[in-house]
Amino acid sequence: MATAAAMDRVVVEQLVREVVLQKLAEAEGRDQPKLAVHASARHMHVSREDLDALFGPGYELTVDRPLYQEGNFAAKETVTLIGPRSRLISNLRILGPLRSRTQVELAFTDAVSLGLDVPIRLSGDLDGTPGAVLMGPKGIVEMRDGVIRAAMHVHMSPQDAAHYDVSQGDLMKLRVGGDAGITFERVQVRIGPDFRLDVHMDTDEANACGLHLTKDIELFK
Amino acid sequence: MATAAAMDRVVVEQLVREVVLQKLAEAEGRDQPKLAVHASARHMHVSREDLDALFGPGYELTVDRPLYQEGNFAAKETVTLIGPRSRLISNLRILGPLRSRTQVELAFTDAVSLGLDVPIRLSGDLDGTPGAVLMGPKGIVEMRDGVIRAAMHVHMSPQDAAHYDVSQGDLMKLRVGGDAGITFERVQVRIGPDFRLDVHMDTDEANACGLHLTKDIELFK
Repeated sequence: MATAAAMDRVVVEQLVREVVLQKLAEAEGRDQPKLAVHASARHMHVSREDLDALFGPGYELTVDRPLYQEGNFAAKETVTLIGPRSRLISNLRILGPLRSRTQVELAFTDAVSLGLDVPIRLSGDLDGTPGAVLMGPKGIVEMRDGVIRAAMHVHMSPQDAAHYDVSQGDLMKLRVGGDAGITFERVQVRIGPDFRLDVHMDTDEANACGLHLTKDIELFK
Repeated sequence: MATAAAMDRVVVEQLVREVVLQKLAEAEGRDQPKLAVHASARHMHVSREDLDALFGPGYELTVDRPLYQEGNFAAKETVTLIGPRSRLISNLRILGPLRSRTQVELAFTDAVSLGLDVPIRLSGDLDGTPGAVLMGPKGIVEMRDGVIRAAMHVHMSPQDAAHYDVSQGDLMKLRVGGDAGITFERVQVRIGPDFRLDVHMDTDEANACGLHLTKDIELFK
C-alpha cells in the first residue's frame, strides 16, 4: 500500500546535468565491447509540426553538441513545460533530429515536481500517456499525450548483440558497484546497425546508484 | 571516467513527498515479519545547541506527525539550507528527537541542485563530510560538516535479525519488482530492541525503482 504523506513544496534552483561514464574494456581487451553508460537529464523530442508551432514555420534546430549515438544531438533550443497545476519546468532541452511524434522524457523527481503521474515506457510507446503544455518563443503546443519516464535501455550493434547473445527487446541487467551498489534488472535491448554500445538511464537512476562515484559497472544477461 | 557536461540550470517548483509502502506478510503468515519500506524526503536532525541557535534558547520541537520508528517524529519546524554558491533549499524539515550532532540528509538530486558533493554515509558517520549554512527564524548555524546522502539501511528487532540470520552491520539486498526492477545490494542492517522492520531509502532511490508502482518487494541476504 503506497501512501503519499507530508507533502513539502520547495522552490529550488535545480541543476540538472548529464553525467557520462565510459568503461573501457577491461583486461581481455579487443573482444570485450566498450560499454558506455549515459545519464540523461529531462529532455524532449519534437515533431516537425510541433516545432513549427513552438518556433515558427520551417524552423530548424541548432546543434549545441553531438550525442554519443551517431546523428543525435542536443539542440540549443529549449521550451517551457507546464504541468496540470500550472507548475512548470523551464529550459527543457530539445534533442534532435526531429521525430514523427513529440515526446517528453522526465525522471520521476521531475514528474513529481510537476504534479504529473507518468508511466515507464520505451521511447515511442506513447498511447495512453499523459500530456502537458509546451511553450516556445512563437507559440504553445497542447500535447494530448507523450510524457513518459523512459525505460532503461541499451543501444547495441548486431555484433554486440551476438557477443552478449541477446535479441531485440530482451532484458539485460546492469550492475553498478560502489557505495550504493545497485543492479538494474530491466535494461531493454535495442539493436541497430549503427548503434554504439550505450546504456541510457535517467537522473534518478544515476543518482540512486551513484553513477558518478564508480567505474565498477557490468552489463549481463 | 565520469565527465560532467551540458549543465542545465532550471528553476522549478519542487515537490518532495514521502512515500510509504508496506508489504503485508505473504502466504505463510505469522512467522514472516511484516516488511515496511519508507522513502524519506530530504530532512535534518538537529542538536540541542544548534536548535537553540536557530529557534532560540530552550526551544522545543513541535510534533507534526509520528514516524514509523517508535519515538521518532517529523517536526513542524523547518529551516533554510544554503549551499556553497548561495543556492538554497527552503523548508528543510527537522526530524525529532534531538541528536548529539546535527546532520542533513539529502538525495543526490538535492545535493546537485545545491552544488554540494556529498558522500554516502550511515547516519552519525559525519567526519570529513561537507558542511552548509542553516537559517532559522532566530539565527544562523554554520555547519562545519554533517551533510550526507544516507546509506540505505534496514531497521530490525533482534527477533527479525534471527529470522533473516543477519547481524549488526551486515549487508542485505532489497529487490523491488515492477516496471523499473531494481535490486539494491547494500542495505545495511541496524538492530535495536525496539526497532520495527523497516527499510529506509531516499527519494532518488524510490524514484529510480518506482516504489510507488509496485508491491513486489523482497528483503534477503
